[in-house]
Amino acid sequence: MTQIEKALAGKITREVRIAAKEESLSPQTLSSLVAAGRAVVVHNKIHLHCRTLAIGESTRTKVNANIGTSEKASDLKTELKKLRIAVEAGADTVMDLSTGGNLDKIRREIIAASTVAIGTVPIYQAAREVTDSGKTIADMSASSLFEVIEKHCADGVSFITVHCGVTRSSVDRVRKQGRILGIVSRGGAFLCRWIESNRRENPLYEDYDKLLSIAKKYDVVLSLGDGLRPGCIADATDRGQIEELILLGELARRARKSGVQVIIEGPGHVPLDQIEANVQVQKKLTDGAPFYVLGPLVTDIACGYDHIAGAIGGALAAQAGADFLCYVTASEHLRLPTPEDVREGVIASRIAAHAADIVKGIARARAQDLKMAKARASLNWALQAKLSLDPDRARRLQGRTPLQESETCTMCGDFCAIKMYRESRTRKNRAKR
Amino acid sequence: MTQIEKALAGKITREVRIAAKEESLSPQTLSSLVAAGRAVVVHNKIHLHCRTLAIGESTRTKVNANIGTSEKASDLKTELKKLRIAVEAGADTVMDLSTGGNLDKIRREIIAASTVAIGTVPIYQAAREVTDSGKTIADMSASSLFEVIEKHCADGVSFITVHCGVTRSSVDRVRKQGRILGIVSRGGAFLCRWIESNRRENPLYEDYDKLLSIAKKYDVVLSLGDGLRPGCIADATDRGQIEELILLGELARRARKSGVQVIIEGPGHVPLDQIEANVQVQKKLTDGAPFYVLGPLVTDIACGYDHIAGAIGGALAAQAGADFLCYVTASEHLRLPTPEDVREGVIASRIAAHAADIVKGIARARAQDLKMAKARASLNWALQAKLSLDPDRARRLQGRTPLQESETCTMCGDFCAIKMYRESRTRKNRAKR
Repeated sequence: MTQIEKALAGKITREVRIAAKEESLSPQTLSSLVAAGRAVVVHNKIHLHCRTLAIGESTRTKVNANIGTSEKASDLKTELKKLRIAVEAGADTVMDLSTGGNLDKIRREIIAASTVAIGTVPIYQAAREVTDSGKTIADMSASSLFEVIEKHCADGVSFITVHCGVTRSSVDRVRKQGRILGIVSRGGAFLCRWIESNRRENPLYEDYDKLLSIAKKYDVVLSLGDGLRPGCIADATDRGQIEELILLGELARRARKSGVQVIIEGPGHVPLDQIEANVQVQKKLTDGAPFYVLGPLVTDIACGYDHIAGAIGGALAAQAGADFLCYVTASEHLRLPTPEDVREGVIASRIAAHAADIVKGIARARAQDLKMAKARASLNWALQAKLSLDPDRARRLQGRTPLQESETCTMCGDFCAIKMYRESRTRKNRAKR
Repeated sequence: MTQIEKALAGKITREVRIAAKEESLSPQTLSSLVAAGRAVVVHNKIHLHCRTLAIGESTRTKVNANIGTSEKASDLKTELKKLRIAVEAGADTVMDLSTGGNLDKIRREIIAASTVAIGTVPIYQAAREVTDSGKTIADMSASSLFEVIEKHCADGVSFITVHCGVTRSSVDRVRKQGRILGIVSRGGAFLCRWIESNRRENPLYEDYDKLLSIAKKYDVVLSLGDGLRPGCIADATDRGQIEELILLGELARRARKSGVQVIIEGPGHVPLDQIEANVQVQKKLTDGAPFYVLGPLVTDIACGYDHIAGAIGGALAAQAGADFLCYVTASEHLRLPTPEDVREGVIASRIAAHAADIVKGIARARAQDLKMAKARASLNWALQAKLSLDPDRARRLQGRTPLQESETCTMCGDFCAIKMYRESRTRKNRAKR
């Protein structure tokens, strides 16, 4: 039995207990959320050394980091370094999106080295294999796609992105819509090409039951991908995007009924004033499934700083109810990210997630800020660094010589407001006595 | 006559015409907003080579960069470098917050070198002079404070921060409230100490008419400072903060009646779900005065990345109606910012301002994103870099060899979704013919 089947049967699993403890939730509460499909427990029967965690309603907002090679940059060592940095920086999960080099080897080494759950997008490998053999995407066979999916599951990935909502009807809606930027998801573009060339339905949609049986066998979470997400502010929240989301809502229900956990992927590029609506519509159309957003980016013109544009959108989305933030790095739209981009991207998303958790009622988030405020009030510099999201960086910026308690930093020197206010209070009290 | 007096008299000034053109507003519209105190025109009769600009309702969201020495780091050359970098990065104004070294010389050189309006906080110099003479802040005389204020105006600053709302009553409210972090504004802490030691009222409040007469003489904009802004999430939106804001609203009205333009400064540290309320309350209590926010920071624990926490808060504040964002740098809470911190801080705030302008109805903002989306659709890499907020950085990340049009970047290589979608369309059309 899978996690959701056990939850539906009223059985509280070991994994639910572990994840619930992490969230300061009762196992019963989390198990009910899993049963209802409003939260998922990410774990793995094969990748046993990966941390079990919950994603969804009432849980801390999680952060994913994408790593992986491309045809133009396929060094395994660099990707393993990115993995290590992502985990050190606090990523809750990592997706291996490799499309270049020995994909099986890269994925297996990443899983072996990772202490967090690994996700993949199997269609990338299926597409690579068919193009490597001199054919085009359109020549990809449905069976080869399902074989790759099963291979990934058997290797120990915990969740897979499957673009099941890219269908003849939803692609048609995108074409009719007349977008500025068409399709910007690679999986979406592969399937669009496949559908239009072969004049056949997306096998991930048509043979969805086959997909469900694989996912169930390995108890892998399906991340229903948004292959038709908008790629620019002007295309946001259009009919093609929402058509796909409706399909994903229907498929999410089928998955739960088949004993498979699902999360739903979301945009993308979204202007500030449409973010809340996107989350509300997703929650409504998918019966409250966990929402996994990419960014969202609140402007198209932040090249070189898209981690910041993504943190703005991510904070708003998470405040509105998104559960899982996929980071965007400074290299987005420009190149494959560097290890340093990975670190900054994870931290930027963690800031967004944490800022949202403060107002989402995650008690630990607010408590952490309160501790920091008290460390500031006492000018305890070492504790301030320790309580920071990136203690090493905080220490580095504090300077080579650690500041002693009650010393002031170079920003204000003797004009430190905290020190002045404290001294003024002391004097006032002395005067009163 | 001052700008606001002329606006009230129905006279459209040269400065209003210049600023209105920049904003694609009619001079009449901007002049009416200035007359109502809902926008200000920042210019200078002495610092003639600084750009004239409007801040407030219906205008593009502006960004300020703080630079300046401290007692512990007082190199003029570094500050001039920060000024140059801030302006290059797109800061609309710069504040010289120097508190160390030869303050007159530093300010005058910054004004001489700046093509943007300069703001200052004169009380820093008044406080420095009294402490340098071996006395304490409490010994500062009201007349010396006003002398410094007039000196700054005569030197050509365009706006000054004056903490007029730090009064016996508002400080008392802060004490009664029982804050975690007390007062974190330096000006606020100076005045709190002065008020409590001398048991006298803040001269900037008591002799407000004197302040108004100086501001009027030089037609300098008063930036009514929030000396009692909260310094942590736990202290946000408390009675001390709102009491000060009420006072600033009253003082704003008096300023307008006296022919002086005002803007209102705001927090600080604010959780995501209180940002909109902060802006609405400010607009209501100050009759729609332009709102100048510091960040706001949406968490206390982003040490080393506070430019990102500030960009999240700034975007939300600007979307809700804030008009002017004071950047926060990565060094906030840790040290005086470096030139590189200044650049990143300005860009982070510009991303926030621009994301808000997209949804605030600033036509040019949305048009810029649309151009970028079209440049992406055509894989025009050079144009994408050019349209970015920081073209140099975008080019640097694109790589040493500029990509040719229709080439793909290292992120996706031959799996470029944009290219695939375009080719699929072409094939489809060919198939139709």
